[in-house]
Amino acid sequence: MSEPIHDEDLLDPHTAEAPVDDGPHPDDRIDDERHDEENRLKPEYLRSVRGALEEGDKGAVYDLVEPLHPADIADLLELLDREDRGALAVAITDLMTSEVIAELNDHVREDMMEALEPEAVATIVEQLETDDAVQLIEDLDEEDQRAILAEVEAEDRAAIESALAYPEETAGRLMNRELVAVPERMTVGQLIDYLREQDELAPEFYEIFVVDERHHPVGTCALSWILTTPRNIALTDVMKRDQTLIPVDTDQEEVALMFQKYNLISAAVVDESGRLVGQMTVDDIVHIISEEAGEDVLLLSGAGDGDINEPIREAYSSRVRWLVANLGTALVASFIIAAFGAAIEKLVALAVLMPIVASIGGNAGTQTMAVAVRAIATNQLTRANTWRIVWRELRVALLNGATIAVLIGIGTALVFTPMLGVVIALAMVINIIVSGLAGVLVPVIFERLDQDPAVASSVFVTMITDSMGFFAFLGLAVASGLVS
Amino acid sequence: MSEPIHDEDLLDPHTAEAPVDDGPHPDDRIDDERHDEENRLKPEYLRSVRGALEEGDKGAVYDLVEPLHPADIADLLELLDREDRGALAVAITDLMTSEVIAELNDHVREDMMEALEPEAVATIVEQLETDDAVQLIEDLDEEDQRAILAEVEAEDRAAIESALAYPEETAGRLMNRELVAVPERMTVGQLIDYLREQDELAPEFYEIFVVDERHHPVGTCALSWILTTPRNIALTDVMKRDQTLIPVDTDQEEVALMFQKYNLISAAVVDESGRLVGQMTVDDIVHIISEEAGEDVLLLSGAGDGDINEPIREAYSSRVRWLVANLGTALVASFIIAAFGAAIEKLVALAVLMPIVASIGGNAGTQTMAVAVRAIATNQLTRANTWRIVWRELRVALLNGATIAVLIGIGTALVFTPMLGVVIALAMVINIIVSGLAGVLVPVIFERLDQDPAVASSVFVTMITDSMGFFAFLGLAVASGLVS
Repeated sequence: MSEPIHDEDLLDPHTAEAPVDDGPHPDDRIDDERHDEENRLKPEYLRSVRGALEEGDKGAVYDLVEPLHPADIADLLELLDREDRGALAVAITDLMTSEVIAELNDHVREDMMEALEPEAVATIVEQLETDDAVQLIEDLDEEDQRAILAEVEAEDRAAIESALAYPEETAGRLMNRELVAVPERMTVGQLIDYLREQDELAPEFYEIFVVDERHHPVGTCALSWILTTPRNIALTDVMKRDQTLIPVDTDQEEVALMFQKYNLISAAVVDESGRLVGQMTVDDIVHIISEEAGEDVLLLSGAGDGDINEPIREAYSSRVRWLVANLGTALVASFIIAAFGAAIEKLVALAVLMPIVASIGGNAGTQTMAVAVRAIATNQLTRANTWRIVWRELRVALLNGATIAVLIGIGTALVFTPMLGVVIALAMVINIIVSGLAGVLVPVIFERLDQDPAVASSVFVTMITDSMGFFAFLGLAVASGLVS
Repeated sequence: MSEPIHDEDLLDPHTAEAPVDDGPHPDDRIDDERHDEENRLKPEYLRSVRGALEEGDKGAVYDLVEPLHPADIADLLELLDREDRGALAVAITDLMTSEVIAELNDHVREDMMEALEPEAVATIVEQLETDDAVQLIEDLDEEDQRAILAEVEAEDRAAIESALAYPEETAGRLMNRELVAVPERMTVGQLIDYLREQDELAPEFYEIFVVDERHHPVGTCALSWILTTPRNIALTDVMKRDQTLIPVDTDQEEVALMFQKYNLISAAVVDESGRLVGQMTVDDIVHIISEEAGEDVLLLSGAGDGDINEPIREAYSSRVRWLVANLGTALVASFIIAAFGAAIEKLVALAVLMPIVASIGGNAGTQTMAVAVRAIATNQLTRANTWRIVWRELRVALLNGATIAVLIGIGTALVFTPMLGVVIALAMVINIIVSGLAGVLVPVIFERLDQDPAVASSVFVTMITDSMGFFAFLGLAVASGLVS
C-alpha cells in the first residue's frame, strides 16, 4: 500500500478554502434512515413516499426523494406499483435524470417510456451515452422508435441507428462508441496534453486504444501506466500489444466470459475489417454477467424471463407453456402406470411407493443437470472433457443410488415385504443412474445442437426420470413375481 | 469518439525503432488453431497436449503451451485429469506463473498446492497480490497454511494473516491492500509527479483515494479525470466526495450488489473506525457476481457447490444429503397416498392420474420459487413490496391453474368419467395456487429468518406441492362420492 504523504511542502493554496460540498456525506449511503443494513430502501421510507403521493403533496415527495442516489431513485420506482410510479415521476421531474433511466429495470422503463411523449423521450435519449440510449429504445415498437429518433440530433441518431442495425445482445448493439483512440507515434507527454485539450471526451474511460493509420488497434494503455510513466517515453513502449479484441457480432454471453477470463476493464470492439469501432466496459459487463448467470435458474425452472416486474400476461404465457409441456411428459408417465394397472389393483403398496422412486430420480437428475448447465455456461464443460465428466457423474450417481437404495430398501422390507424392499432398492439404483446420465447428456446434446441447454433440458430430463422411475419399479415388481 | 490524431508534428523519434514484440499477435487469441469460435480450447489441441504428456516429451509440451495466455493455461489444467495436471505443471514450470495460479478453479488449485512443497508454494505466494495469495491458501489445512506462511517474507505474511483474520467471503478477506491514497492538499500536477516517483505502486489501479489526516476517505478521483485536468487544479476540485464506502465486514454478495447498483470500478474498504484499509476492484467482483448468481441454480437443485472439479466424495456428500431429505418429503406424500389406499384399490384410475397433479404442481412451485429466489438475491423483492409480489404470483397461478385444469379436466372426462374430470380439474387449480403461494412465501420466510432462501426452500416447496397434489386429488375423489 502506498502510504499517504504528510509532507507540508505539498500544501497547495487551493485547499485552504473550505471544500465544496458537492453531494451527500459519503457515509450517508449506508446506515442512514432510508436504507436497511443490506442497502435496500426501508419499508418505512417507502410508506412515507407513498403517503405523500396519496396526499398529492409534491413538495414533500420531492424532499423525501432528493437526497437519493440515482440508482436508489430507480429502485424506488421499481418498488412502487404502476400508478404510483407515474405520480412519482411527475413530482420529481428534474431528478429523473438519464442515470435514473439507465438504472431502471427493463420492464419498468419500457412501461414509463410508453407513457411519455416522443419529444420527452428524445430529450432523455440525447443525455444518455449511446449504449444506454439504445437500451432505452430497443424494446419499444418500431413506430415509437421512429417517432423518438426523429426528435434526436442527427449525430446521436446515426450512432443509435447503427447500433440498432446489429442483432440484440451482440457487442455491436451493446458497445459504447465513445472511446479514446490515438496514433502510435505519441509520447506519454503528448498524450496527456492531447487529453487535456479535448472537450468532448467520454466522462470516464479506463484505457487508451492505440491504433494504426487504418484505425486497427495495435495496443492498449491502462491509464495507471500513463500516470506512472515519464512524459518522454513513447506510448508504444508503455502499451500492451497483446489485447483481447471483440468482433462486433460476438454474443454478450461470450463477451462476458472474455472479461471474466482475462480480467478486463475495457476491451476494443472491431468490425469485420478489423477497424476499431467501439469499446465494451466492465460496468456494462457486470450487468450482463449477473443476468446470464441468474438466467439459468429461471430457464431451468421454466419461469421464462422471471422478472418480478414482467407484466402478468407475459409471465403467464411464458410459464403456462412449460406447464403444458410438463402435462405432456406427465401423460407419458401415466401411460406407463396405466399399463401396470392390474398389478396396482392387486398390490396397492405399489401405488403408495411409486412416487418415491420417480421423485428422488427427478431430484438426482435436476442436481446433475444444474451442474452440467452451469459448467457449459461457464465454458468448463467442453468437447474436450465431456467423457471425463460423464464418467464422474456416473460415479456420483452410483454412490447416491446405493445410499438411497439401502435406506428405502430396508424401510420397505420392514413395513411391507423383503421382496418389495429388494424391488424398490433396485429400481432406485437404476433410476438414479439413468437420471445422472440424462442430467449431463441431455444438456450436452442440446449444446451440440446449438440450443440453449438451460431452456430445453428440463422437459426431457423430467420425462426420462419420471417414466423410468415408474417403469423400473412397476416392471421389476411384475418381473420378480411379486404380483402375477 | 475521439478521432485519432494524424498530425505529423506529433512524430516521436522513439517510434522510429521497430516496435518491441512483447506477446502474441492480438488476433491470436480468437480464431486461432487452439481455440474454437467460443474461445474454448479445441479438443484436438487438448489431444496433442495429452499425447505429448504420455510420450513424456517435455519439449513438445512446452512448445504447445508456451503461446497460451495464463488464463488459457489455467483452463488447460482444468480440462486435464488429475494425473496429467501434475505432469503438465512439471513440464512447464516457468510458465506456471502467479497469474495462472490465480485463474485456476479453487478445487484444482487446492489439489495442486497440496502436491507442492511449502517452500514452492511460498515462492508463488510472494509473487501474488494479497487478495490472490489469500485465495490460494485460505482453503488449505491450518498446518499447511502455517508451513507456507513461515516461508513468506514478514511484510507479505502480516498482510495475509490480517486478511485471514476476517471471515471468509467478507470485504476484509477479499480486499486488495495495495492502493493509492493521497492527502487532500495535492494538486493534479503534484499527484502525477508523486505517482511517477513511486516504485512500488500496484501495477494497475483505476482510482485515487483522497484521505484526511486520520486516513479517512474524503473523496475519489477516476484516473481519467486526472488525465484530462490541468496540473494546477486542486485534487479536491476534481475528486468526487460522494463515494461508496464498504465496511470491512460486508459480505461479498452485498459488495457485488453495490458494484452493480452504483456502477463502480473500484471502491474503498474502511475499518470500524472509518479508516481506509483496502480497496475492492471490479475484476474481482465479476467473479463474485458470476459465482453468486450462478449459485442459485445449484443450491435450488440441491447440487451443493456444483463444481465439476469438486472431488467426488464432496459432490456425493452434498448431493446425497438433499436426496435423503427428499426421501423424507416423498414419505409424507406416500403416507397421504396410503391413507387413500382403499379408494385406489377400487378405482385404479386414481393411481394413474395422481402423479400428474403432483408433478405439475411441483413445476408451478419451482417456477415461482426460482423467480422469488432471484428477486431476493438481487434486492428486488424486499419487505417493501412483498405483498404486491405475492398478489402478483397469485394472479399468475390462477391463470395457469385455470388453463391446465381445463386441459386435464376435458381429457380426463373423455378418457374416464366426467366426474373424475371435474375432480382432477379442481385438484389442479388448488394445487397450482398452493404451489404459487408456497413458491414465493417459503423463500421470503427463510430470508426473514436470515437463512439463504436458495438452500432451504426446495425441500419445503416440494413437500407442500407433492402432498397437496395427492391430498387434493384423492380427497376430492372420496368427498365427491366417486369412490365410497
